[in-house]
Amino acid sequence: MYPESLEKLIASFRMLPGVGEKTAERYALVMSEADPESVRQFSQALLDVKAKLIRCKTCGNLSEEEECDICRDQNRDHTQICVVQSPKDVIAFEKTGEYKGVYHVLGGLISSSKGIMPEDLNLESLLKRAADAKEVILATSATLDGETTAMYLEKVLQNVRADLVITRISHGLPIGGLVDYADEMTLIHALADRRRME
Amino acid sequence: MYPESLEKLIASFRMLPGVGEKTAERYALVMSEADPESVRQFSQALLDVKAKLIRCKTCGNLSEEEECDICRDQNRDHTQICVVQSPKDVIAFEKTGEYKGVYHVLGGLISSSKGIMPEDLNLESLLKRAADAKEVILATSATLDGETTAMYLEKVLQNVRADLVITRISHGLPIGGLVDYADEMTLIHALADRRRME
Repeated sequence: MYPESLEKLIASFRMLPGVGEKTAERYALVMSEADPESVRQFSQALLDVKAKLIRCKTCGNLSEEEECDICRDQNRDHTQICVVQSPKDVIAFEKTGEYKGVYHVLGGLISSSKGIMPEDLNLESLLKRAADAKEVILATSATLDGETTAMYLEKVLQNVRADLVITRISHGLPIGGLVDYADEMTLIHALADRRRME
Repeated sequence: MYPESLEKLIASFRMLPGVGEKTAERYALVMSEADPESVRQFSQALLDVKAKLIRCKTCGNLSEEEECDICRDQNRDHTQICVVQSPKDVIAFEKTGEYKGVYHVLGGLISSSKGIMPEDLNLESLLKRAADAKEVILATSATLDGETTAMYLEKVLQNVRADLVITRISHGLPIGGLVDYADEMTLIHALADRRRME
């Protein structure tokens, strides 16, 4: 219905997650009226992401270098490895400013429903890295797939070295969360993982 | 926090309407993992939209030619002009398959809150076209700005020719709409514009 060039752009926007026909139309029409320089930069940014972004050879995080900034940072504790699902999770922990160790990005979670098996994840190099580490923090989400993955990782990491400390991030009431709004599973964990007040 | 190329793509996605930081991140990460050929096409589609799309010299609709497909179609009734706000509205009417006249795209609506005045719209050529038309259908939305624009257009079009028929699309209950869910203004219009059953 639209001119061909606009239809093609609508089709491209539809590749984005959660973007249907109406939203793609809206995005494409906005682009058709945006200033040409911004659109040219957008176009170039798409090409650059494919050309420049690679996986860090050590941790699997997104990087423009063979090894990412965090893995190359000698001020960080390379004996503490925080295992996460995706690059977004690395950013989430980095934003806290509290964590001084390094990361390992799995690139997914074990999932029977999605048919994702341990061999589909960035695991082999984790086992090698764990051999030189003091602690591995399992920081996958508190979802079914996240817990499954954490349990699997605990099992295989136990075999790496007897004195390797394997930890799991805690579950409980989120900060600001109301007890009477929390679901039962959260309260069960919040009770079970309770700690003595100092 | 992300590598530079990814940050730049996130910034570009944020230009899109309704896209915040989180959504832009999600879009950019999906693009970083999409197949390279699709991303190349996306990049090219952005450039093409700016390079190829122009406004139809007759009706103001988006077109890749000097005059759009609809204005060049000799099978359509060029004496009936449907005045709409934007190219999206043209598509909405075209999808009905019922309308055989031509269009005029204003490129906006008169709006005191947004400071859009009649001279900001594609109006001059409408007055010229109306001189040769039998009917002008005012098909702006049933919003404050849409009604203001329709009233303004009626006033100026009346001066074009005494026998020009000026009509407004009807207001009333949408198909499938429930009376007890309809707002008062809709019901007032639905009553006032009632028609005899045949």
